[in-house]
Amino acid sequence: MKAHVLDSLNHPGGQCVELYPDKPIYDIPAVPVCTAKELTENLLKQIEPFKPTFHYGEEAQVLKKLDDGRLYVKTSKGTEFLAKAVFIAAGVGSFQSRTLKVPHIEQFEGKQLHYRVKNPEIFEGKNIVICGGGDSALDWCLNLVSKAESVVLVHRREGFRAAPASVSKMKELCDNWEMQFEVGQVTGFTEENGQMTEVKVTGADGVTRRIPAEHLLVFFGLQPKLGPIADWGLTLERKQIVVDTARFETNIPGVFAVGDINIYPGKKKLILSGFHECALAAFAASEYVYPEKRVLLQYTTTSPKLHKVLGVETPHFD
Amino acid sequence: MKAHVLDSLNHPGGQCVELYPDKPIYDIPAVPVCTAKELTENLLKQIEPFKPTFHYGEEAQVLKKLDDGRLYVKTSKGTEFLAKAVFIAAGVGSFQSRTLKVPHIEQFEGKQLHYRVKNPEIFEGKNIVICGGGDSALDWCLNLVSKAESVVLVHRREGFRAAPASVSKMKELCDNWEMQFEVGQVTGFTEENGQMTEVKVTGADGVTRRIPAEHLLVFFGLQPKLGPIADWGLTLERKQIVVDTARFETNIPGVFAVGDINIYPGKKKLILSGFHECALAAFAASEYVYPEKRVLLQYTTTSPKLHKVLGVETPHFD
Repeated sequence: MKAHVLDSLNHPGGQCVELYPDKPIYDIPAVPVCTAKELTENLLKQIEPFKPTFHYGEEAQVLKKLDDGRLYVKTSKGTEFLAKAVFIAAGVGSFQSRTLKVPHIEQFEGKQLHYRVKNPEIFEGKNIVICGGGDSALDWCLNLVSKAESVVLVHRREGFRAAPASVSKMKELCDNWEMQFEVGQVTGFTEENGQMTEVKVTGADGVTRRIPAEHLLVFFGLQPKLGPIADWGLTLERKQIVVDTARFETNIPGVFAVGDINIYPGKKKLILSGFHECALAAFAASEYVYPEKRVLLQYTTTSPKLHKVLGVETPHFD
Repeated sequence: MKAHVLDSLNHPGGQCVELYPDKPIYDIPAVPVCTAKELTENLLKQIEPFKPTFHYGEEAQVLKKLDDGRLYVKTSKGTEFLAKAVFIAAGVGSFQSRTLKVPHIEQFEGKQLHYRVKNPEIFEGKNIVICGGGDSALDWCLNLVSKAESVVLVHRREGFRAAPASVSKMKELCDNWEMQFEVGQVTGFTEENGQMTEVKVTGADGVTRRIPAEHLLVFFGLQPKLGPIADWGLTLERKQIVVDTARFETNIPGVFAVGDINIYPGKKKLILSGFHECALAAFAASEYVYPEKRVLLQYTTTSPKLHKVLGVETPHFD
């Protein structure tokens, strides 16, 4: 079977790489420890012989069953697919940055309001306000403090989710007047000639202060959204796709759901369960791809056919 | 939860290590390639922090549920266990060598008749007959040809399952009169003073020849036997234990079956499925072990409690 892989993210790895690329994982069976990044690299290496085609940065927006039984998929970039089987492995949905809820501030997005940093050099010599209490917020404070004109960190409380070492470093910089930390929330902004010049920060005391801001960096974390999947006619249960446990197939024949996005009796959101679900769904999918032939279970230890696909020599043993 | 592991084999690894220790496996997810031996080593390393107690070379012979709900297990060595949950991960059962079907020849087992080689030095200077067509048979021919007085290979047909290189080498040795190959089957033996002196080999031509044999090595492969498991009152289907897919529990509450020994709709005998089955069964078992508490799914990436068990530091990330 040939596979096309479609991901709304710009790189492989899904939520593992998006949420915790460098965190050690201890419960991948037979891998005592690895990071999410290493897990992704190993999986990519493992599937290499099967030559899947990757389409990154495209969100699947349309899925429908055609009269001839095939499945039609259309992406946010307009790419169209006709497939005999579709696997939905969307995790908790597609990740979107939690946005700042301030009226009309979205007009600055990508210009002066940033949820991700693409080109850090644009902040050089500028007045920067950074919102958030996690590692992203703290890391960018520490990174930009020596490059920007001013750096002000705004967080709604005194406590931080970020690494204690980064928090100490930030506090030290504040003590030395190299940056500033305000407890509060951004509640407004000042605009001049279509440019944001200041943000208004309302503190726990109810007082609103104005802070010069040519760039506002917001790191409120990522939030998964089910997105277009909700409109495909799939049976859902608490935002998850209902599947059976023999085939991991949805209510639409030929559409399978694997990993964190599916739900069935006993479901645990574990990576190792996703592996099992994929394997059984792949067997079931082969019935749509090759309706005329019976696909037998073969082992990579012994099957010359699999060895050919894998590009390895068939060893000889008793 | 604390676990005792009971295995009829003398070492960990089950059928993987028993049947194909050095064969490369390509379908362990996130492990592009490893041998069965390496797989076993990695799994042993991974479970180290949980300090399981291993009992090798003991076969579980008795399993019964006591009136108080606990499970009683007794082994071939007389070891007794009382457990709140029992996992049967017996693969295809316990492995036994396929035996030579010749009346009364079993009297020589372990003395002149061998299904496994423990001390190769006992064959030095002796007349050896080796039966089989796989790698074990061929490897022992090549190994003993320079040490034994004579080596005769007996196989029922001209074709071999063994590595072609070993077969060529064996044929070359035959051409040089260093050993001998007979197509046929051992159908009898000659005995003198309680000692086997010759075996009778009947060829495809129906003629029986006598071959001097102080030792007879038989390599007909291993054959799994369900053994005592069949008598434990478990619901079986074609020699496999019936389980559900939410808990992988058998008809006896608290008794779970995982891996190749179980059967359920969609079952594929894959190692990766065994991992999933174990994880879900472990959650279900926790209800018997800790009936009073609700065990929540925690992740090794984030749970300080799991980090403590694993003996690692909790990292700090956003």
